[in-house]
Amino acid sequence: MNVTLAEVAKLIGGEVVGDDSTQLTGVAGIKEACKSELTFVSNPRYNRYVAGTSASAVVVSRDYPVSTRPDGTSLIVVEDPYEAFARAMVIFAPEGDIVSDGVHPSAVVAESATLGEGISIGANVVVMDEATIGDGTTIHAGAFVGRSVAVGRETTIYPNVTIRNGCVLGDRVIVHPGTVIGSDGFGFALSGCSHTKVPQIGNVIIEDDVEIGANVCIDRATVGSTRICRGSKIDNLVQVAHNVVIGDGSIVVAQVGISGSTRVGRGVVLGGQAGIVGHIEIGDGAMVAAQAGVTKSVPPGERVSGYPARKHSAAKRQYVFIERLPKLIGSVRGLESRISELEDAVERGGAAGAASGGRAGGGVERPDEEV
Amino acid sequence: MNVTLAEVAKLIGGEVVGDDSTQLTGVAGIKEACKSELTFVSNPRYNRYVAGTSASAVVVSRDYPVSTRPDGTSLIVVEDPYEAFARAMVIFAPEGDIVSDGVHPSAVVAESATLGEGISIGANVVVMDEATIGDGTTIHAGAFVGRSVAVGRETTIYPNVTIRNGCVLGDRVIVHPGTVIGSDGFGFALSGCSHTKVPQIGNVIIEDDVEIGANVCIDRATVGSTRICRGSKIDNLVQVAHNVVIGDGSIVVAQVGISGSTRVGRGVVLGGQAGIVGHIEIGDGAMVAAQAGVTKSVPPGERVSGYPARKHSAAKRQYVFIERLPKLIGSVRGLESRISELEDAVERGGAAGAASGGRAGGGVERPDEEV
Amino acid sequence: MNVTLAEVAKLIGGEVVGDDSTQLTGVAGIKEACKSELTFVSNPRYNRYVAGTSASAVVVSRDYPVSTRPDGTSLIVVEDPYEAFARAMVIFAPEGDIVSDGVHPSAVVAESATLGEGISIGANVVVMDEATIGDGTTIHAGAFVGRSVAVGRETTIYPNVTIRNGCVLGDRVIVHPGTVIGSDGFGFALSGCSHTKVPQIGNVIIEDDVEIGANVCIDRATVGSTRICRGSKIDNLVQVAHNVVIGDGSIVVAQVGISGSTRVGRGVVLGGQAGIVGHIEIGDGAMVAAQAGVTKSVPPGERVSGYPARKHSAAKRQYVFIERLPKLIGSVRGLESRISELEDAVERGGAAGAASGGRAGGGVERPDEEV
Repeated sequence: MNVTLAEVAKLIGGEVVGDDSTQLTGVAGIKEACKSELTFVSNPRYNRYVAGTSASAVVVSRDYPVSTRPDGTSLIVVEDPYEAFARAMVIFAPEGDIVSDGVHPSAVVAESATLGEGISIGANVVVMDEATIGDGTTIHAGAFVGRSVAVGRETTIYPNVTIRNGCVLGDRVIVHPGTVIGSDGFGFALSGCSHTKVPQIGNVIIEDDVEIGANVCIDRATVGSTRICRGSKIDNLVQVAHNVVIGDGSIVVAQVGISGSTRVGRGVVLGGQAGIVGHIEIGDGAMVAAQAGVTKSVPPGERVSGYPARKHSAAKRQYVFIERLPKLIGSVRGLESRISELEDAVERGGAAGAASGGRAGGGVERPDEEV
Repeated sequence: MNVTLAEVAKLIGGEVVGDDSTQLTGVAGIKEACKSELTFVSNPRYNRYVAGTSASAVVVSRDYPVSTRPDGTSLIVVEDPYEAFARAMVIFAPEGDIVSDGVHPSAVVAESATLGEGISIGANVVVMDEATIGDGTTIHAGAFVGRSVAVGRETTIYPNVTIRNGCVLGDRVIVHPGTVIGSDGFGFALSGCSHTKVPQIGNVIIEDDVEIGANVCIDRATVGSTRICRGSKIDNLVQVAHNVVIGDGSIVVAQVGISGSTRVGRGVVLGGQAGIVGHIEIGDGAMVAAQAGVTKSVPPGERVSGYPARKHSAAKRQYVFIERLPKLIGSVRGLESRISELEDAVERGGAAGAASGGRAGGGVERPDEEV
Repeated sequence: MNVTLAEVAKLIGGEVVGDDSTQLTGVAGIKEACKSELTFVSNPRYNRYVAGTSASAVVVSRDYPVSTRPDGTSLIVVEDPYEAFARAMVIFAPEGDIVSDGVHPSAVVAESATLGEGISIGANVVVMDEATIGDGTTIHAGAFVGRSVAVGRETTIYPNVTIRNGCVLGDRVIVHPGTVIGSDGFGFALSGCSHTKVPQIGNVIIEDDVEIGANVCIDRATVGSTRICRGSKIDNLVQVAHNVVIGDGSIVVAQVGISGSTRVGRGVVLGGQAGIVGHIEIGDGAMVAAQAGVTKSVPPGERVSGYPARKHSAAKRQYVFIERLPKLIGSVRGLESRISELEDAVERGGAAGAASGGRAGGGVERPDEEV
């Protein structure tokens, strides 16, 4: 891939300062970039790195002091350098897997399935009866699309994904490899050591513009639908149990687990490895810290952390108090000896012999000696 | 699907109160159900929802006050509404993936493999040498059954499951998509940065009536067998390390990790995201709370939580104490000023000048000001 | 498998004490071993088990008191019993899956792919354009090797693994089933409920002698490479985010999550379910305890645990202090009553009426009564 700086600037909508005939061959971070590569600075704090970069060109914001530009380094000035750089990356992206022009001969597609225009179905894909695949959708090798599954337009399903019967995916959805959509919810009527399976007859609905990471599990509803709403992004190895609903535009970081029937609002952020119990609500715009264990509903906009999860500000204070426990114990011990001395003094002074009776309950332990 | 209330009542063993010719088309929760759907109430606390439901019929317990039945809503009276409703769900379940009548032509089955009667082997399934598949077992598309694997009768293996060589699955086992059974245990002779792999020559045994979720990993034993005993149920994304044994009828919730050689008893419940160290025992009937980190053996019947896991009752008290730390520090500060005043008073009273010597050690910190 | 003790001793380099014509049929742990099996003791503490074992032969260290050998039990004396036993295990290992002699007819290999000598490519494997597979490498059934992927020599890729385009694997790498290498990093320009995907145009590099467990996810870099350095071992269900680097010979236990751009040093051990935030460094030789939540960089050689992770020694003291909180509160309450008595005594003695004014601020709460 070889383009001029002028061409890149035009594609990402910026103004060149420097030599617009510079040939660019790739993109990289400001520290790693080599000659003929494009890089960027978004945060003014990192402007100082521009002087030391080997990149031939840097995407910068309008606030960047253009006069400080080093010799031999050209600039593209834009409104939002990060977003502009992201678009520049696409220009240099290596060619992905071209799945197939149409249906690969090794794919097994049921006769009753309906395939849209311009679809690509890779090697060894299996599409079951009455499934429908929308226009421009790509299904990579080894993926499984179950009976009556409906997949929208321009959706990408990566290799070895499993979508079980009856699930629905919208338009422009991306599902990364190894992910399972529509496995049975974990529902049993428990009794001693012999548990009866509760049938899981619902499905999963993935709305438009949702992206789902690799090796994620989204269980079908017991009855009704587990639903991931428009524009939400789910990272790798996340567990979404039966009947969960995740609202529009929420972010679910890797290895989060959401238990059955919980409702996650719009624009929520769930940090990595957080766990959420079942049957609660996480309000719109709430933020759950990484590894938090959420045991009750979280109001809209609240930040929670820790186990059991509580307001993040309170949790942070608690961590500080816990760190100061040794000092606190020292203080209590100091007070005790002062009281003992006072008691002796008062007794000697004949003020009140009764005071010493209180000592029986005393004796501050010294835990640090027994750790 | 269209059946009468009378037919459903017969199939689930209940008595109709109301119009037994009511046509039913599906099932749903009591709040979500629409006309012509069946719903249920199990907990008497939710009886009040019956008045507001749009369902045409409700499965209720013998304790339900039949006289309060709303007009237009029929009832099916049973012993256990939840269990009866679960059976009713099966009637309305959408048709699943019909894998194949026999072996799909695209499946690759070794000549030396033994296939039972009435089996279904889906598209692109691979069955290796000397594997045996029991009568009535279904293996969905893209699953891999390794050399000498033995699968029992009426077992279901979902798409893209991998079962490595030598593993054994019993009857009526269910394995959800993407799960891996029999991967090598994580065993190395560690030495600096160059670790020698310890061969993992054992296998995995899954007994009858076990259900295993999606994207689960169950490692083969170093020597001997990793074993999941009869009737246990394992949720999605669980890690079971080499040589672990899980007793009969235990419940392992999503994202739990069990380290090598640990023995989990019968009827144990391991909450979501809990982690268990290796080489310990979790006693029969014990319950481990979600996200707990279990670092030592748990006696039978005990409930533990937190990290490091301790008795749940003690852990709960500790959380309360931690929340009260700010108050405790305030109290200690209050005591300190009272002691100072006493010391001044005693000194002024000429009782004992010595008492003030104790103050040198004092000074309660004020952590909240530095947070 | 049937070999004599003399043959095993020769293969693992030890001296026989006892009957070197003993026939051996397998290996097992010292408690589980039966007649005609080989076992071992490595730790002298377990020497006492030798008397009770049913094994026909035991691998022991040079320190073992050979004179105590029970009748009918032969010994193989070696330098390092654990390591020698590991090598003996290989002799008795059941035959694994013989993938194929060359390329299985059902595999789909692009014409532009380059295959080395002595490779085995299993049923339904898909190898895309311009991929290269090194000599002696085995790719098991259903695995996917993307466009321009480079796989080294004598590497093993298990069933249903997905390696996306442009990733690089070294020599003698092992990748267990269901693992995904090269999925897109989780990168979005966040804005309200509509997030813009940041292209992920980098790749993943897996160096020589790395072993990766089952259902692991290793995301490709946004730009540049996510890298797992030589000899590192990664357990099942681990999440490695974009642009992470893991140094030589590190150990990452199951279900760990490492966030984007974090650099893990050489010889690091990350305990099970630990979570590491992004953009930090874990120094060479550091150890992170299971379930720890690491929120800032860890110096080389340090051991950390808990959430937020801190020095393990400090964390352990804190757990003890927390357990003692009830006692501490009892102590403070005891001090309070002693002060009250002193105040009364001083007041009665006419020493200083002012002292009692300090009581207004008092009142130690009794949290345990409200739990």
